[in-house]
Amino acid sequence: MTVSDKHILLMDGPDTKGLIYHVTAVLYHHDLNVIHNDEYVSPSGQFFMRTEFEGTFDAVSLLNELRSTLPEGITLRLNPKRKKNIVVLVTKEHHCLGELLLRYAFDELDADILAVVSNYNILQPLVSKFGIPFHYISHEGKTREEHEEAILRTLTIYEPEYLVLAKYMRVLTASFVSQFPNRIVNIHHSFLPAFVGANPYRQAYERGVKIIGATAHFVNNDLDEGPIIAQNVKEVDHRHTAADMATEGKDVEKIVLSQALKLVFSDRVFISGNRAIVL
Amino acid sequence: MTVSDKHILLMDGPDTKGLIYHVTAVLYHHDLNVIHNDEYVSPSGQFFMRTEFEGTFDAVSLLNELRSTLPEGITLRLNPKRKKNIVVLVTKEHHCLGELLLRYAFDELDADILAVVSNYNILQPLVSKFGIPFHYISHEGKTREEHEEAILRTLTIYEPEYLVLAKYMRVLTASFVSQFPNRIVNIHHSFLPAFVGANPYRQAYERGVKIIGATAHFVNNDLDEGPIIAQNVKEVDHRHTAADMATEGKDVEKIVLSQALKLVFSDRVFISGNRAIVL
Amino acid sequence: MTVSDKHILLMDGPDTKGLIYHVTAVLYHHDLNVIHNDEYVSPSGQFFMRTEFEGTFDAVSLLNELRSTLPEGITLRLNPKRKKNIVVLVTKEHHCLGELLLRYAFDELDADILAVVSNYNILQPLVSKFGIPFHYISHEGKTREEHEEAILRTLTIYEPEYLVLAKYMRVLTASFVSQFPNRIVNIHHSFLPAFVGANPYRQAYERGVKIIGATAHFVNNDLDEGPIIAQNVKEVDHRHTAADMATEGKDVEKIVLSQALKLVFSDRVFISGNRAIVL
Amino acid sequence: MTVSDKHILLMDGPDTKGLIYHVTAVLYHHDLNVIHNDEYVSPSGQFFMRTEFEGTFDAVSLLNELRSTLPEGITLRLNPKRKKNIVVLVTKEHHCLGELLLRYAFDELDADILAVVSNYNILQPLVSKFGIPFHYISHEGKTREEHEEAILRTLTIYEPEYLVLAKYMRVLTASFVSQFPNRIVNIHHSFLPAFVGANPYRQAYERGVKIIGATAHFVNNDLDEGPIIAQNVKEVDHRHTAADMATEGKDVEKIVLSQALKLVFSDRVFISGNRAIVL
Repeated sequence: MTVSDKHILLMDGPDTKGLIYHVTAVLYHHDLNVIHNDEYVSPSGQFFMRTEFEGTFDAVSLLNELRSTLPEGITLRLNPKRKKNIVVLVTKEHHCLGELLLRYAFDELDADILAVVSNYNILQPLVSKFGIPFHYISHEGKTREEHEEAILRTLTIYEPEYLVLAKYMRVLTASFVSQFPNRIVNIHHSFLPAFVGANPYRQAYERGVKIIGATAHFVNNDLDEGPIIAQNVKEVDHRHTAADMATEGKDVEKIVLSQALKLVFSDRVFISGNRAIVL
Repeated sequence: MTVSDKHILLMDGPDTKGLIYHVTAVLYHHDLNVIHNDEYVSPSGQFFMRTEFEGTFDAVSLLNELRSTLPEGITLRLNPKRKKNIVVLVTKEHHCLGELLLRYAFDELDADILAVVSNYNILQPLVSKFGIPFHYISHEGKTREEHEEAILRTLTIYEPEYLVLAKYMRVLTASFVSQFPNRIVNIHHSFLPAFVGANPYRQAYERGVKIIGATAHFVNNDLDEGPIIAQNVKEVDHRHTAADMATEGKDVEKIVLSQALKLVFSDRVFISGNRAIVL
Repeated sequence: MTVSDKHILLMDGPDTKGLIYHVTAVLYHHDLNVIHNDEYVSPSGQFFMRTEFEGTFDAVSLLNELRSTLPEGITLRLNPKRKKNIVVLVTKEHHCLGELLLRYAFDELDADILAVVSNYNILQPLVSKFGIPFHYISHEGKTREEHEEAILRTLTIYEPEYLVLAKYMRVLTASFVSQFPNRIVNIHHSFLPAFVGANPYRQAYERGVKIIGATAHFVNNDLDEGPIIAQNVKEVDHRHTAADMATEGKDVEKIVLSQALKLVFSDRVFISGNRAIVL
Repeated sequence: MTVSDKHILLMDGPDTKGLIYHVTAVLYHHDLNVIHNDEYVSPSGQFFMRTEFEGTFDAVSLLNELRSTLPEGITLRLNPKRKKNIVVLVTKEHHCLGELLLRYAFDELDADILAVVSNYNILQPLVSKFGIPFHYISHEGKTREEHEEAILRTLTIYEPEYLVLAKYMRVLTASFVSQFPNRIVNIHHSFLPAFVGANPYRQAYERGVKIIGATAHFVNNDLDEGPIIAQNVKEVDHRHTAADMATEGKDVEKIVLSQALKLVFSDRVFISGNRAIVL
């Protein structure tokens, strides 16, 4: 299959001499033009490389040639540069969802929001303004497993590449998470690892911090423990009550989530253990 | 005793109606000029006020009049505006100490450094450049109590108003700390309460954070748990090793410590439970 | 007229001894409770004070008593604590408008958006989602004066207390501005006074800056020269094209504008010459 | 000449297909190990690449091979990874100089300070603490040209690779600057291009900005107009006088200057027109 769009080649594996040379040689001999190339070698000797290129090529033969040139153990992915399909999960708070909807409406999200799922129907009016399906799946009267089962049935309709937890305030089971490995992005309303768990702004107030923050991260089995994609902070002082911090924090949360999604959706984020490598 | 310097009046206690009025009335009738006035009422109803004023007055009669006007339970302190006397404790790292020495040498610290005490003699050459006594009190071969006893004997010579822990890497006992209530300021090399304890930059690297920070705080009985005076942060990315973070972090640490000391030495910091109120 | 809501008392004028005392005395004798008090004396000797208080009182007699107590030259304003009525002016860009609409929809703006006016009809669909009147007043085929005249006729319907220029990309005449003294807030997409005028991100790119910013300010007769209410910045590097900077800058612009409006709508901003005093 | 240290290869010129491939091929065939590689292509089609590598090689044959492989117009520089030799010029202010001296004393500057030159002798005591030659070259009674001639004679002794203007408050002539092309780094105490010229903090105060900053840049013929290497900022408010801003700004200035020097001294900064590319 001959393609001619911009593509992104993602590689990672054990570092050995000549990896950049080997890859760029193959691209050069296919007459492909490297638009942007970035790589990183971790202290433990893991190599990561993201190469954005353009030109007309046959994807199968390019990948075959790369595989035969590169050493064993290097993982290769070749993605066309295009929007991702996502579903957004929310609970009651509107600020992150509203931000995503506006960006989507004006084609600034690098993703199509296929649907919004919520355990409350509070945000239905907001979502309906933007003509996106809203699925109200209450958790009331259901076990956690039953509730997640209902969500999964709905997700089956959309087959999203990523789930975005835009202030979805329920803990997901390991079973649910395992179905979307490195494909769930959450926004946590603290500067992780400070203040994991519930009520981080209340915790921040009690501790008397002078800076609050927000953290966008991948979700893995441990709550608030997945690889951090982006963080940002904001100064506060003793005059801020926990409620004031929550209000101020919303501006940080929504911007950090958007920035993290921009990185993820443009295939710039590698996972290395519990760390996110952003190339 | 009639005085005519600038003074700072510090008040705190349960909030009741008219506190500002009562204080400003007394100052007005003493023909004193309020240069700056700031106050704060906490959500739990505690009142804090800092009033900087100038004029000629009799300190005893002013305080008596204020005490008779204000309700029971209001704590009053009247400080002349002047430099504090401090002793600095360090271990091996020079960056915070160097910063303080330079500021002191150019009269920018709002404090006189009476002496530097260290459990290593590594920083003696630096201190000697600035003509300040350096006391090398090794902890080797001593119990924690014996070591602190030796430090206390040295401190007795200087009678400092504040101790500054400028990267002093030993935990102080409750007994030691209790002799300097709210008079010990420490710089911790993380954005507290993230990464308490040892090796915070190593912890930060392992967790893959995108922002590092530093925290200046009062020391109380619990390690890294005292009231936070000032914090600041700096962006990092996956390319920063733990050592890189430590290097970058030094710039944050020394500036945050200096800023916190400036606030403390100008009598702008009240303690309320575990929170610092900065007026 | 006896009122019992929260009120805000705003005072400014030449500083003299006892101003805080005189004001708090009157409030105390009216049995009013000061919730928050903040004041400032400028280097040139101008006094500013904002007092938020609660209690039941007669507004006329309170103001009369204050006027008779305070020296000549002190300006007094007494505002009930309530939302402001505003009209938003836009051109083609949606990000600031979208932010304001979302905040308004969820009652987070401290203002009611009475209408949106634009010289293009591009943003009509967005505004209509939120059920707010949209007035498309094209400037084509009109002189600047005719166009402003048409806008003014529309504004007459709404009698807004403030105009918000949320990326309104036309210069207003002195005549127009003079009808809304200190009542027009603009967001400029640079860190003023750097890059006044058109295409600031292009200018920033050409100059090779490492930080971009946005500035919310009052509009007076000189373009981009009014008192600055709030500013914020964001790091960029050589990889950012002018277009990238514009994209990144939007996040700064909309948050800065919202923060500035929050300050203005809560009566916290005084004007002193070309400087904004935020109490 | 066979060498075996870490080296840095710097390339820039018109972008063509295969540049990364050509360079990495040569390094691979010389059995050299790329430690870090970074490149950038400007919107106008200029290619920049910095490759840090290690291994044993013959410098002449490596450069010859690279030159024969690469297209005409690519500039090549091959630097061993080592400290630079610098001279620091100052006037009266100590904060930037003190910062550099401390870093130098503890081997954190990536440079050797060969000497300090000043048009005042105020900072001589500080410099003498660190055992570095201090040259007091007063400008009094000299024309600008005579003064610069005297400085140049002193510089001839040291043959520095870089001059650092650490708050040197005199404008250099084009003739002087032309002798150190892209080798003079200055710290300007504002967020350029805001507030060029004298008294930027006074200008900032008058304009009522809410953020101040500092800018480290190369010096070319136009005052405050050279390529910007690093910038940073700090929030201020209406309570900051121009003098307060100057005090607060010092912390920003010295850190920004140090960060910029770290980039320059590690051969990470390319000049492209009036922009600095930092790889």
